[in-house]
Amino acid sequence: MSILCVGSVALDSVETPFDSAERVLGGSAVFFASAATLLAPVRVVGIVGDDYPIDRLNFLAERGADLSGIEKGEGKSFFWAARYHADMGGRDTLATELGVFADFQPKIPEAFRKSRHVFLGNIDPALQHDVLDQVEAPEVVACDTMNYWIEGNRDSLVSLLDRVNILMINDEEARQLANESNLVRASKWIRDRGPDIVVVKKGEHGAVLFADDWVFFVPGFPLEEVFDPTGAGDSFAGGFMGHLEQTGSLDPVDLRRSMVYGSIMGSFAVERFSVERFVDLTPSAIEARMAHFHDMTAFQAHAQVEERV
Amino acid sequence: MSILCVGSVALDSVETPFDSAERVLGGSAVFFASAATLLAPVRVVGIVGDDYPIDRLNFLAERGADLSGIEKGEGKSFFWAARYHADMGGRDTLATELGVFADFQPKIPEAFRKSRHVFLGNIDPALQHDVLDQVEAPEVVACDTMNYWIEGNRDSLVSLLDRVNILMINDEEARQLANESNLVRASKWIRDRGPDIVVVKKGEHGAVLFADDWVFFVPGFPLEEVFDPTGAGDSFAGGFMGHLEQTGSLDPVDLRRSMVYGSIMGSFAVERFSVERFVDLTPSAIEARMAHFHDMTAFQAHAQVEERV
Repeated sequence: MSILCVGSVALDSVETPFDSAERVLGGSAVFFASAATLLAPVRVVGIVGDDYPIDRLNFLAERGADLSGIEKGEGKSFFWAARYHADMGGRDTLATELGVFADFQPKIPEAFRKSRHVFLGNIDPALQHDVLDQVEAPEVVACDTMNYWIEGNRDSLVSLLDRVNILMINDEEARQLANESNLVRASKWIRDRGPDIVVVKKGEHGAVLFADDWVFFVPGFPLEEVFDPTGAGDSFAGGFMGHLEQTGSLDPVDLRRSMVYGSIMGSFAVERFSVERFVDLTPSAIEARMAHFHDMTAFQAHAQVEERV
Repeated sequence: MSILCVGSVALDSVETPFDSAERVLGGSAVFFASAATLLAPVRVVGIVGDDYPIDRLNFLAERGADLSGIEKGEGKSFFWAARYHADMGGRDTLATELGVFADFQPKIPEAFRKSRHVFLGNIDPALQHDVLDQVEAPEVVACDTMNYWIEGNRDSLVSLLDRVNILMINDEEARQLANESNLVRASKWIRDRGPDIVVVKKGEHGAVLFADDWVFFVPGFPLEEVFDPTGAGDSFAGGFMGHLEQTGSLDPVDLRRSMVYGSIMGSFAVERFSVERFVDLTPSAIEARMAHFHDMTAFQAHAQVEERV
């Protein structure tokens, strides 16, 4: 099977203190698919304008993405431009031109409707509802959102929670959604409204999974150079869902590894502009980073005193 | 042997959104010793005024702290007062009255001078130099500092680094000291000036140990209620150094566990005012939290596919 992913397919212009890139591949569905297809097949639903360089998505098709759900609208593609601050800690949005995305009405192709695993990228919660109305019997629905929808379409978002198994959200958004500054309590508030699992993304500090009776932390990968932070969260989601699709399991032992694949993909995303790092990323590079994450976090709870006599 | 700890012995008045405490035990040496003595003996050097309720430190003496290095000066004890913000994310300092601490000249008692493990709490780097001048041949010197000294006595602090094995510092201070926003590069800058190991404390996000060719992360413990954040960093140092004293080892396998004991003690510190949580903390509560930390971070790098056929 494949993961069904619905989200934006965009063009991004990004300036960092070191370099800049113009009209490169971007959007939540593109970052998600670029990461996830390294682990499992993906079905992409989105919309592009007549200016979109669709051939540049060929690398996704070549490794198992079904792009037949990307509709071509009349007009411009979603365009986003931003400039990162000197310390990469923040950014100024220079442009958000929705183009054809403004009237996006996701149409799930017949062949995609039996998807077991669904990722709802960060779009209007009303559209996320529409997507779920078209999917027959998903086993796992994961969902992202942002402050814009928490503020602007809160009721729709809260009612969506009841249809979602895994909410992926950043720490500030979790606090804002639950109106609660403590993350443990904020995640409980969210879980009380539907999702069994809340994954809180904390940027360079990694991510935390909150479930009913367990919690799992994964750090961010310590990079000397964060080249371009754009898309890290969607790439995290791609790694997480890609491994979930691989194992087909919600067992804690497997979800823990999904978290690590999420952080691995997030760390690769920021090493270059756009999805460039994913284009030729090898399985051995992914597994090397997995080993690195294990080394960064593993410890023996008890000292082996007998060896030290 | 014992850990030699030099730092402030203070009285704190703390207001949180939930409660307040007046003139309770505080200071870096007190938090450090309260945590460390749960794991190993500690020798405390500091100064108090003639108003200090020294009997309230009896619980430390009872579990192996040697308090004979606490000098009694003429005048008032170091007094600090603060009010935490509604979300506990920040605080306003209401009073800092140095009292006898203003003229503190650490005198290391003869019996303490052969200490193997030394913790230099957050005091003037010039005094931290003075302490090291009085210690004969320490094996491991760990040191804390703060933005006040980075700004006000930078040269002395930088020259101290060459005499320190482990610098413990928070993330903002590490960035400030190295004048470098990237933590990996900031820690490298610091290690290039002396310390083999830099431990960066990140509050609720946990802590990171940077060594020459390895890195180790420990998360913060996810508490539903952070009662009073005061002293978490010094308690972290106490847990870290306490376990280092127990094992006498700088092997990565042991330093990793020291990091976890650090985070454990930091998490207990914030559960009550002052050092109250440490007074009757049991070994079994510590070991239960150790197991909890293991459960929050352990994962299997590879899926056990054969079990799933």
